[in-house]
Amino acid sequence: MLHFECDYLEGAHPRILERLTETNLVQQVGYGEDEFCKSAREKVRAACGCPDAAVHFIGGGTQANAVVIDALLARHQGVVAAQTGHINVHEAGAVESNGHKVLTLPQVGGKIQADDLLHYLEQFYQDGNHPHMVYPGMVYISHPTEYGMLYTLEELRKLHAICRQYRIPLFIDGARLGYGLMANGTDLTLPLLAQNCDAFYIGGTKVGALCGEAIVFPNPDTAPFFFTVMKQHGAVLAKGRLYGIQFDTLFTDDLYFRISRHAIEMAEYLKEGLHKIGCRFFLETPTNQQFLIFENSELEKLAETIGFDIWEPFDETHTMVRFATSWATQKEQVDSLLTAVAEVLHK
Amino acid sequence: MLHFECDYLEGAHPRILERLTETNLVQQVGYGEDEFCKSAREKVRAACGCPDAAVHFIGGGTQANAVVIDALLARHQGVVAAQTGHINVHEAGAVESNGHKVLTLPQVGGKIQADDLLHYLEQFYQDGNHPHMVYPGMVYISHPTEYGMLYTLEELRKLHAICRQYRIPLFIDGARLGYGLMANGTDLTLPLLAQNCDAFYIGGTKVGALCGEAIVFPNPDTAPFFFTVMKQHGAVLAKGRLYGIQFDTLFTDDLYFRISRHAIEMAEYLKEGLHKIGCRFFLETPTNQQFLIFENSELEKLAETIGFDIWEPFDETHTMVRFATSWATQKEQVDSLLTAVAEVLHK
Amino acid sequence: MLHFECDYLEGAHPRILERLTETNLVQQVGYGEDEFCKSAREKVRAACGCPDAAVHFIGGGTQANAVVIDALLARHQGVVAAQTGHINVHEAGAVESNGHKVLTLPQVGGKIQADDLLHYLEQFYQDGNHPHMVYPGMVYISHPTEYGMLYTLEELRKLHAICRQYRIPLFIDGARLGYGLMANGTDLTLPLLAQNCDAFYIGGTKVGALCGEAIVFPNPDTAPFFFTVMKQHGAVLAKGRLYGIQFDTLFTDDLYFRISRHAIEMAEYLKEGLHKIGCRFFLETPTNQQFLIFENSELEKLAETIGFDIWEPFDETHTMVRFATSWATQKEQVDSLLTAVAEVLHK
Amino acid sequence: MLHFECDYLEGAHPRILERLTETNLVQQVGYGEDEFCKSAREKVRAACGCPDAAVHFIGGGTQANAVVIDALLARHQGVVAAQTGHINVHEAGAVESNGHKVLTLPQVGGKIQADDLLHYLEQFYQDGNHPHMVYPGMVYISHPTEYGMLYTLEELRKLHAICRQYRIPLFIDGARLGYGLMANGTDLTLPLLAQNCDAFYIGGTKVGALCGEAIVFPNPDTAPFFFTVMKQHGAVLAKGRLYGIQFDTLFTDDLYFRISRHAIEMAEYLKEGLHKIGCRFFLETPTNQQFLIFENSELEKLAETIGFDIWEPFDETHTMVRFATSWATQKEQVDSLLTAVAEVLHK
Repeated sequence: MLHFECDYLEGAHPRILERLTETNLVQQVGYGEDEFCKSAREKVRAACGCPDAAVHFIGGGTQANAVVIDALLARHQGVVAAQTGHINVHEAGAVESNGHKVLTLPQVGGKIQADDLLHYLEQFYQDGNHPHMVYPGMVYISHPTEYGMLYTLEELRKLHAICRQYRIPLFIDGARLGYGLMANGTDLTLPLLAQNCDAFYIGGTKVGALCGEAIVFPNPDTAPFFFTVMKQHGAVLAKGRLYGIQFDTLFTDDLYFRISRHAIEMAEYLKEGLHKIGCRFFLETPTNQQFLIFENSELEKLAETIGFDIWEPFDETHTMVRFATSWATQKEQVDSLLTAVAEVLHK
Repeated sequence: MLHFECDYLEGAHPRILERLTETNLVQQVGYGEDEFCKSAREKVRAACGCPDAAVHFIGGGTQANAVVIDALLARHQGVVAAQTGHINVHEAGAVESNGHKVLTLPQVGGKIQADDLLHYLEQFYQDGNHPHMVYPGMVYISHPTEYGMLYTLEELRKLHAICRQYRIPLFIDGARLGYGLMANGTDLTLPLLAQNCDAFYIGGTKVGALCGEAIVFPNPDTAPFFFTVMKQHGAVLAKGRLYGIQFDTLFTDDLYFRISRHAIEMAEYLKEGLHKIGCRFFLETPTNQQFLIFENSELEKLAETIGFDIWEPFDETHTMVRFATSWATQKEQVDSLLTAVAEVLHK
Repeated sequence: MLHFECDYLEGAHPRILERLTETNLVQQVGYGEDEFCKSAREKVRAACGCPDAAVHFIGGGTQANAVVIDALLARHQGVVAAQTGHINVHEAGAVESNGHKVLTLPQVGGKIQADDLLHYLEQFYQDGNHPHMVYPGMVYISHPTEYGMLYTLEELRKLHAICRQYRIPLFIDGARLGYGLMANGTDLTLPLLAQNCDAFYIGGTKVGALCGEAIVFPNPDTAPFFFTVMKQHGAVLAKGRLYGIQFDTLFTDDLYFRISRHAIEMAEYLKEGLHKIGCRFFLETPTNQQFLIFENSELEKLAETIGFDIWEPFDETHTMVRFATSWATQKEQVDSLLTAVAEVLHK
Repeated sequence: MLHFECDYLEGAHPRILERLTETNLVQQVGYGEDEFCKSAREKVRAACGCPDAAVHFIGGGTQANAVVIDALLARHQGVVAAQTGHINVHEAGAVESNGHKVLTLPQVGGKIQADDLLHYLEQFYQDGNHPHMVYPGMVYISHPTEYGMLYTLEELRKLHAICRQYRIPLFIDGARLGYGLMANGTDLTLPLLAQNCDAFYIGGTKVGALCGEAIVFPNPDTAPFFFTVMKQHGAVLAKGRLYGIQFDTLFTDDLYFRISRHAIEMAEYLKEGLHKIGCRFFLETPTNQQFLIFENSELEKLAETIGFDIWEPFDETHTMVRFATSWATQKEQVDSLLTAVAEVLHK
């Protein structure tokens, strides 16, 4: 059985496990004040081109989203997001459980459009009843989106300009950031991304770590009491070294970018193969997630040997599925997947 | 420099790192549905003598407390705890941030007394104004307490009987549970503890794991939607295998109990040595934490070679400090600590 | 200047002020335990045909919605509502501020369709990822809706049957309930409504009271600690008599229904008149709110003598507005409105 | 049967009911934008000597406390209060339900001491672990306190100076403010109080209104989105005129102060009479609440003709009770109370 459901099917990049083992008995203080975290923070700052950035490590994406949003919003504010945004659908209401509404915008490929955002904000303040409504207090986007799509530098700049105009922060969910930055054709780099938002995180869980995301506030004054808000959310690890060692490793010798690039190469190879077979794409993306349409009977067959993610029904007789590559995907695994799909389609 | 501040100064028990490395490329589904978690759950159930228990893995103690309390309380209820309870002091208001008051009782060595609990509950319901007040909806205790002290089986039975009488659950914070169960003179075992409460957790972070606590509901109907409440709290790890592998390892061949016992033996050896030197105890405990009183000038000296935890000022010229042993403490380290203390005291 | 913006432009029905004055110096205990509240509760129960109902008085609609929803939902649950539902748009995120997501359905005239609800619930439980999502924990509808439209008995029965099938309560926002029950052609009565939901409130603020809504739980076990949840929301009035006297008066000699019927007659007279003039309706409703479309230049003129509610832009050159009648509307006022509209339209 | 339980046993001052009746059919827009509210705000500002103050009307004391505290605190902050503070005991956890901890200080007569506050704040910031704890974000006091006691100008100045030093607002619960300002011997006036805090409210419910408190922020920038936070709490009344008319009336011709003074005179007369009879005071206060100790058998007798508030058990055979006067208390009623007490004591 081969698995392509998602990008968190294996443990960690082997170098991370080696480093955990090498450093295991070094005594370090807790709660992120250890030497490993300090070193990792410096490397993350350098990679982002933000020497003053505040960098916090946290366990996973839902937690990162919940804590950043909770820390940045005031009582009367909500967070603007695409209707398909992860925070709006698949986080069990974490944002609302902290008291804040998710204010939804339409989306294309999971992306919100600058025009839609501007229109929404203009309408809000023109509505005489707006003091009876939730104020838009920040904007949340994902890069790559939940559909594997990417913002261009120009698009990101426009969104950020609108946010600055309305004095609300722009926050980027980067659970799969590495796969976005290493995609073919993107004009965004980590420093350019950091320059064009107010908060973001660099996903570790889906890009080679056992767990952990690195939250970056390019301007350290953005969230001065962030540690305490993390603690309040149960999001501070006693052995912060676990995050420190992982991110220190990922940001040594460009490991994070090299393994991200590998996943992209595997995805490109997979896309090419699926096209050759004549597979039907719902959405072909520049990142590590590909969305395809199969007949339900085909899927049943495929499921015997291949693990995939059922995205949603496409119509009565077809279903949309996701295949994901990752830092751990091997060329032979893609070959096996392609063989299995070909068999199912051409029988 | 030697460290005795706490019991989370090192990484993980080496066997855990070996297992993480051995299993690293085995593909497994996420969110705790992997084979490692399933196996770990079975072993935890067996160790607790609770074949039907619901077992959930979570990152750390503050998170475990916040999620269990949030899942078990209704809107109008708060949680009863000792004034020194971790949830009341050192969790940045996590319980309150979820909407619930901590209702405090007096304590001795961090323990609440059955009489105080009963008196509080009786008074509450006798007060004609109680519908204007927060209802006591559960009781939280720590075992060992924040002061390293232990409940006896009889004491625990009494507290649980009162809780059952008032139909509220009893929840035990077991961040250091291993050290409590392996202490000299305790008459509590893991099955006896499980029989005398409604929810508890087995601390991993402080007892040999990189991170992770195993929450146990002996009766699986106690919190039927617990997974979703965890998700809402950002407390579900995508790579649940990280918890599964750790707890599977800790509950194989009694590793959890053996390493806990080692910490106790080191603590006993430390206590004996400190007594010989003539050290002044604030609280001598049967577990891995010892509380001592030093002159401030002595502490300054000691701090040059030894890391310890400053607990609180004792008087103008003295301070209370904590030394903790752990699964990782070596006899030679204790010897060095004793030498350093002796030098400071007898100079 | 004449006002038709809404149905809360005047004080209270004169009989209410008389009763407040007559009883003013009678000493009564606070917090809803007074004799006036007791009498009012009995009269409300009788009018609903629910001798055992729990009846609670509360200040206004947003508060009623927030407290009922908060009292009935568990942590992992949200409330299903029409996208145009008052709780989703115009309550400043009150539901979310208490930790719960509003799960939206499409609407027609503000009404949700049984098929849409059923489909949503079926899809939710069929989605393998649903434990990562907010559970639908209750259904909220408004009767009349925010657009003045009404459910039929058959429609209400279907919605309630679906709710019972999924074991979630159906809650009816009755801020304008009187105007719905007295509308021409409705087949719903107060007892039939009470039989076909789990919670509702009888709006006082918009139907002749100074303030106050009567929340009814036909089954008193639905929300056993409702008083304490109200208190926690700051929604318990010390001088509960203010609500008691008002509802006692409104439910004496059918006053509530008689003044509601008057508003309907005024609305019918208004509709007839507007049709004669050739006014363009956006939505002609059986209740006290009517939605019309005017050219923007016409509206500017009209605004000189008539107060109306700007609902939303219709297109570049037209706007949708609302006229509302109420218990206080006089025939002469409607005549003046019609004259003013005719002047504007036919100039 | 005569009632002295509390100061909210009757309706409203007759002048208020007259004004409600006179203005009843004047059409006014909702939500506090009406002319009555505007006029009332001006009069309140004038009485406070704060021409720029933001003034908001709200239903009752628990609501005022909850909304002000929620609006002023950030996520990581709690509110400092006396252990006996109303928000800590008798508001069903309203503050916590909004996510904030009540941080308690010792008290004397319900008052917190400047030294205790300073010590607490100093200790907090000296504790190296304070980022793991709830930050003190504001200070809450009551004037008069729940025990009827008063701060002096000097005491208030000291508390405010400490708050300014730590840059946290001082908030005064003035549910019974009128009775405090009109007490014998106080050196506080409304303008002096307004100068020495950052937020307070002028209680209406207990001082002659049917309902309503006037929240005052002397500096209008203190809580810029307060209206929306009120709305989110369900605390905005559609017919805001109800508050406007009441406070306009109370602040016309010093009515608020005159009726407050009357209650003080009745309390002084009551105290004198109780002393003559030889009654035992637990706490003799300068305001409208008096706390006395009776034998339980005496109380049983007294309860046949007099309503009083049982405060708490004093010892096995005695109980502490409260008698309160109010704007509505008549001299004859006090005489009757004194006669009843004398009979019980001297039988």
